[in-house]
Amino acid sequence: MRMVDIIIRKREGHELSDEEIRFFVDGYAHDRIPDYQASAFAMAVLFKGMTKREIATMTDAMEHSGEVVDLSAIEGVKVDKHSTGGVGDKTSLVLGPMVAACGAKLAKMSGRGLGHTGGTLDKLESIPDMSISKTKEGLIDQVNEIGIAIIGQTASLVPADKKLYALRDVTGTVESIPLIASSVMSKKLASGTDAILLDVTVGDGAFMKNMDQARELARTMVDIGNHLNRNTVAVLSNMDEPLGFAVGNALEVKEAIASLHGNGPEDLMELCYTSGSIMLVQAKVAKDREEARKMLQKSIEDGSAFEKLCLMVKAQGGNVNYILHPEKFEVSKNIIEIRSEEEGYIEGIRALEIGESAMRLGAGRERLEDSIDMSAGLVLNKKVGDFVKKGDLLVTAYTNKEPEEYEPVIKDILHAYSIVQHKIPKLPVIREIID
Amino acid sequence: MRMVDIIIRKREGHELSDEEIRFFVDGYAHDRIPDYQASAFAMAVLFKGMTKREIATMTDAMEHSGEVVDLSAIEGVKVDKHSTGGVGDKTSLVLGPMVAACGAKLAKMSGRGLGHTGGTLDKLESIPDMSISKTKEGLIDQVNEIGIAIIGQTASLVPADKKLYALRDVTGTVESIPLIASSVMSKKLASGTDAILLDVTVGDGAFMKNMDQARELARTMVDIGNHLNRNTVAVLSNMDEPLGFAVGNALEVKEAIASLHGNGPEDLMELCYTSGSIMLVQAKVAKDREEARKMLQKSIEDGSAFEKLCLMVKAQGGNVNYILHPEKFEVSKNIIEIRSEEEGYIEGIRALEIGESAMRLGAGRERLEDSIDMSAGLVLNKKVGDFVKKGDLLVTAYTNKEPEEYEPVIKDILHAYSIVQHKIPKLPVIREIID
Repeated sequence: MRMVDIIIRKREGHELSDEEIRFFVDGYAHDRIPDYQASAFAMAVLFKGMTKREIATMTDAMEHSGEVVDLSAIEGVKVDKHSTGGVGDKTSLVLGPMVAACGAKLAKMSGRGLGHTGGTLDKLESIPDMSISKTKEGLIDQVNEIGIAIIGQTASLVPADKKLYALRDVTGTVESIPLIASSVMSKKLASGTDAILLDVTVGDGAFMKNMDQARELARTMVDIGNHLNRNTVAVLSNMDEPLGFAVGNALEVKEAIASLHGNGPEDLMELCYTSGSIMLVQAKVAKDREEARKMLQKSIEDGSAFEKLCLMVKAQGGNVNYILHPEKFEVSKNIIEIRSEEEGYIEGIRALEIGESAMRLGAGRERLEDSIDMSAGLVLNKKVGDFVKKGDLLVTAYTNKEPEEYEPVIKDILHAYSIVQHKIPKLPVIREIID
Repeated sequence: MRMVDIIIRKREGHELSDEEIRFFVDGYAHDRIPDYQASAFAMAVLFKGMTKREIATMTDAMEHSGEVVDLSAIEGVKVDKHSTGGVGDKTSLVLGPMVAACGAKLAKMSGRGLGHTGGTLDKLESIPDMSISKTKEGLIDQVNEIGIAIIGQTASLVPADKKLYALRDVTGTVESIPLIASSVMSKKLASGTDAILLDVTVGDGAFMKNMDQARELARTMVDIGNHLNRNTVAVLSNMDEPLGFAVGNALEVKEAIASLHGNGPEDLMELCYTSGSIMLVQAKVAKDREEARKMLQKSIEDGSAFEKLCLMVKAQGGNVNYILHPEKFEVSKNIIEIRSEEEGYIEGIRALEIGESAMRLGAGRERLEDSIDMSAGLVLNKKVGDFVKKGDLLVTAYTNKEPEEYEPVIKDILHAYSIVQHKIPKLPVIREIID
């Protein structure tokens, strides 16, 4: 079997055999297949797609390319969530403590962020002394004790995906449903969870630009999960504007803290309630989604969700004083207020441009080796549907860069807003549920 | 400018700017852009194509990625030919001496063969002591003196193409018209010729499988050449069966010698007459193609073409005794006669399978570092349209491999023939001329 023939077969639109797919995944994970063949293969898959069977085999081969975690020592149903990524997405930091406060068990292993803004791990690391690595035993103990842990994937987990993910990012082969689905699901399956809630973002700031694509990705992943006996449900959520107001690592942690105190942005909270109510049913701690939603609301009102965040930060070595007193977080030296140049209703806020602007202010990384400025980012003051007058504050930008670096970014942020004269309805955050 | 954005733009079907194309070619030639991005880009080009302007820019950027040879010290119009490759294609060894005998100047720089059988250089090297490297001065002197030289490209010629060609071969991205056209034409332009005759092969044993593809490739290359003031004409020739009878390096040299003695296979000779008559007009040594064809026929009849081959071999250090006495060429230790198992007319001889079989017998290389067995290969006894009886000799195979290695190949060679009960017309070798 030769990799070049497998590439050509996929390029010609043929369905690959299980042997061919395993030959690729195994060979790539073990450095027998070079990057340049893997990227050409990924591009061929992007154009020609994969059948359900091919995706299932790809997922399985990736899952078993490394260690598969056994979490059976954690009592109860382990639930996990995964988002396909968006701008301002701090959901895990709010939703995780909420479902844990309601009795679900969440042992979440996250990846690093690449692209516009940091991932969940980067956000957590903006909390001083917070550790995102645990041994398997430490992870099990922590989840048994407090119900929640969010840590980094160990290097031994799904090595095939680690290599392929990094390669796809620099070869223009990210936006392929079979590759996204097998990447996400192989990681979730290898990390030993029993049930999976997928947040499939859709819109300008997401990989999936429209509902058809999002539905297809969601359906593909739900089918893989259920086929492999993991209760899997997908929520399709709007990413045509950033989620919540804050974009940037420490800024998002502060917004998460405020949300757990009951002061969360409407869209973020609605996403947490909808996703959380599904997860509580999956975890068998609520009989239906209505009951679950009430439990989640109570976890905010009685402070038990916030308490869970404090416990998790403490259990992972973080300085809980920052959670109790978020004003302690370091603030960027430059704070720039961006004001509207016209009057009207906000018709759109291009999420991708907002995300990339935050990255250019220091909040994200262009290359894996880049470091992140935890304090940098944006706080929106207005969202789609809001009315603004000329001179009203649209966004506050935070950065440690020099004016010649940040000034072009400020212009781009202003251009990300489109303002019209007629009323615009608020965008609903939940677009669809696929189970 | 980031390569990943260029890949994505091409993947999305956009036309690239000149700057983007030069950024890629320059960056790749100078190792600033890694193989894995180049292969993903090549696959995107394969799917999405390139406009005429993009191909022209790509050709120009590749041509100037290294040395550009100045042949102005050779008197007269310099002509060159290039074939897109086929099975049993020894045309250069026959056609070159023929046109040189008629007064044209041919300073040909060839590449190595990769795939089924050796390239022209490999074939030449089956002549003992034949050298395929010359300094620029040596090349000019030889062509001024005897009218012909066939040597290897120097390493400094079109380095971008060298890298890209090797990469495409192992990443399933060979069959792209923009990539083939810019590869061929950048090499021909950099090697300093004034006029170019392109032999675009079409059929099972060629890159172009059908006439539409072949026409498009030919038209693309002819346009590039004429646009850059090189008189360029393309002949579309049949590769649905091997060209001539011999497939394999020394076997093909012997067939070329026989052809120059007037005993050439009909299809090979017709291709040489048609191509050669165009080249003599391009070289301004004949006023039209009819006159040119008569000159070429005379060069065979009076032995002057054969004499040119001898002069070239001598000028390049080769042992001319082998040309004068081809029975001196070493013969493989195993000679296997493959006989028809049925009676009927030969409907087809799958050229690709014949080429690959010859390679497996030792005549070609799978990887660039593989060595070639000069004596190995096949000699067909029957071609498409011929009638055979059960037990008639179809092919003679030559190999130094052991029976357990060559026996499966013998079976595949037999399967490459399809035999039917009704009469089959001979395949014409010239399909079309594009100028």
